[in-house]
This record gives sequence, structure tokens and C-alpha cells, in this order.
Amino acid sequence: MRNTTLCYLERGDEVLMLHRVKKAVDENAGKWIGVGGGFEEGESPEDCLLREVYEETGLRLLDWRCRGIVTFVSNEWGTEYMHLFTSDSFSGELRECSEGVLAWKRRDEILSLPLWEGDKIFLRLLVEEHPFFSLKLRYQGDTLVEAVLDGRPYSF
Amino acid sequence: MRNTTLCYLERGDEVLMLHRVKKAVDENAGKWIGVGGGFEEGESPEDCLLREVYEETGLRLLDWRCRGIVTFVSNEWGTEYMHLFTSDSFSGELRECSEGVLAWKRRDEILSLPLWEGDKIFLRLLVEEHPFFSLKLRYQGDTLVEAVLDGRPYSF
Repeated sequence: MRNTTLCYLERGDEVLMLHRVKKAVDENAGKWIGVGGGFEEGESPEDCLLREVYEETGLRLLDWRCRGIVTFVSNEWGTEYMHLFTSDSFSGELRECSEGVLAWKRRDEILSLPLWEGDKIFLRLLVEEHPFFSLKLRYQGDTLVEAVLDGRPYSF
Repeated sequence: MRNTTLCYLERGDEVLMLHRVKKAVDENAGKWIGVGGGFEEGESPEDCLLREVYEETGLRLLDWRCRGIVTFVSNEWGTEYMHLFTSDSFSGELRECSEGVLAWKRRDEILSLPLWEGDKIFLRLLVEEHPFFSLKLRYQGDTLVEAVLDGRPYSF
């Protein structure tokens, strides 16, 4: 079991995406995701958020919104609880990320990128300004086999 | 590190509280708390919520609200991430709980019960209908030494 954060930084009509093409072994290899990572000992979700965003982008968040919790269950990986954030308020200069290539992408092209199937669900919930949600995603290998939104089955 | 749920069931002007006086070894001994417990493997926050509320009260939640995440950091216990819920919609008959004595308490008397210092903070946030929050509480033994609300220091 591990707890993580994921953050989508927003700048007008664009979203900062990370193309995971740099790590030798990476369950996200080739996928586009947000920035974030795992909780370190004693960190709150925000502690982890602020540290990871800074480490991966060089940017300091000035404000943020916690948009939901995503529970990933998989037959290959341990269960992950991902705290999902967005932010449109940050300072600093974007720098290179050791985990992939950062790029600002137009909001309307994001769903066309190579994404995890389940990521498309929560990206849509973010776009729709869905109130704080809990989304459970069950994978078999790379295939999404079940989604549950706020305790109710969700069709995808 | 462990993930848990805590739920306050509400019935009109009353809240279901659990007086922890039954377990031989209990970090909550003597305190009044809500109902809940630890995530089991593969459970989402709601899976845990529904199971724990049923196990401890015999009640089935029909609806619920996730109100916040509380990060407990302590010099004596591992870090705990508590998903905090309220519910005013449930069915079934209240039954005895093996972990303590359940009692409906008037909302205006709850803060006078023996409570953890930090619990008073989030109980007030619930009463004030604070939007979804992240509260970090740092304890030394039984003493609350730091509180951080949504990433900012919080006076108590």
C-alpha cells in the first residue's frame, strides 16, 4: 500500500503534462501523466504535493485544490491511494524533469495523448468540475476492468 | 503508515459517538471518537467506511460525505491518514460495539466530552461546514503540538 499525489498545473487553456520517457524501469513508460510522487515519512498530502511539484518542475505552488482520491487496485502492483490536485497558482521557472519530458498541452488535446484508461475518467471529472470525488480503478495488467465512483459502479 | 476512516453519524441534532472503554490495549482508551478503522487490502476509502460502520454499529450507510483528510504524526505511533466522513442517511438497528459503548450525543455537548485535542479542531470544522480540508496534527504523546490546515499553520 502506498500513498501518492498527482497534480495537474493549469495555465489558461493549457495543462502541464509529463511524458514518462526517461526512467529505465517505469510502470508509466510512454504515458503522459501529471507531476507528483509518493509520500515520505510524516508528510501530509500537501507536504508531498509541494515537494514533488518543486522537485519535478522547479515551480512553487501558491495555491491548490484537492479534487479527489483515486484508489488503484492491480493484480501486478500494490494498492495505491493517489491524492489528486490541480493548481493554477505557482511561481518560478519551469526546469527539466529527470522522470520525463514536461510540456504544456492544450486542454482539448490531452485526451488524445497516450494515457492510462482510468486517467481519462478522472481527467474528465476534473474538466467537468466534479465535486470532490473518490474513484476506485481496478486494473489487470494495463487493462482497466472496473471503475467505481463515490461508491457506485461507473461505466466507461 | 496506515490509512483509516472515521465517520460521524448524524441524526437530527445528535451525533453517534463511541466511548472507547472496552479494549484492553487502546490508544483511544477513555476517549470519545467516531466509528471507523483501518483500510484492508484493496479497499477504497468508501469500502472501508461502509464495512467499518456496519461492523461497529450494525448500520448500513445509504449516503455519506467525505469531509477531509487528517494526517496524524506522532512520536509514539506511525503516521496515520484518516479519511473523515459524515453521514445522515443510514438504515438498520444500532447494535453493541465490541470496541466501546455507542451513544447518541447532542451536538452541543460533544466538545465537553473527553476528546483528543486535535479532534476538537476537526469537529469544529465539521460543525462550521468547512469545505473539504486537509488537517495535519502533530502529537507528542497525548499532547497536540502542531496543527496545519490546508498547508497553513493553524492556531488552537
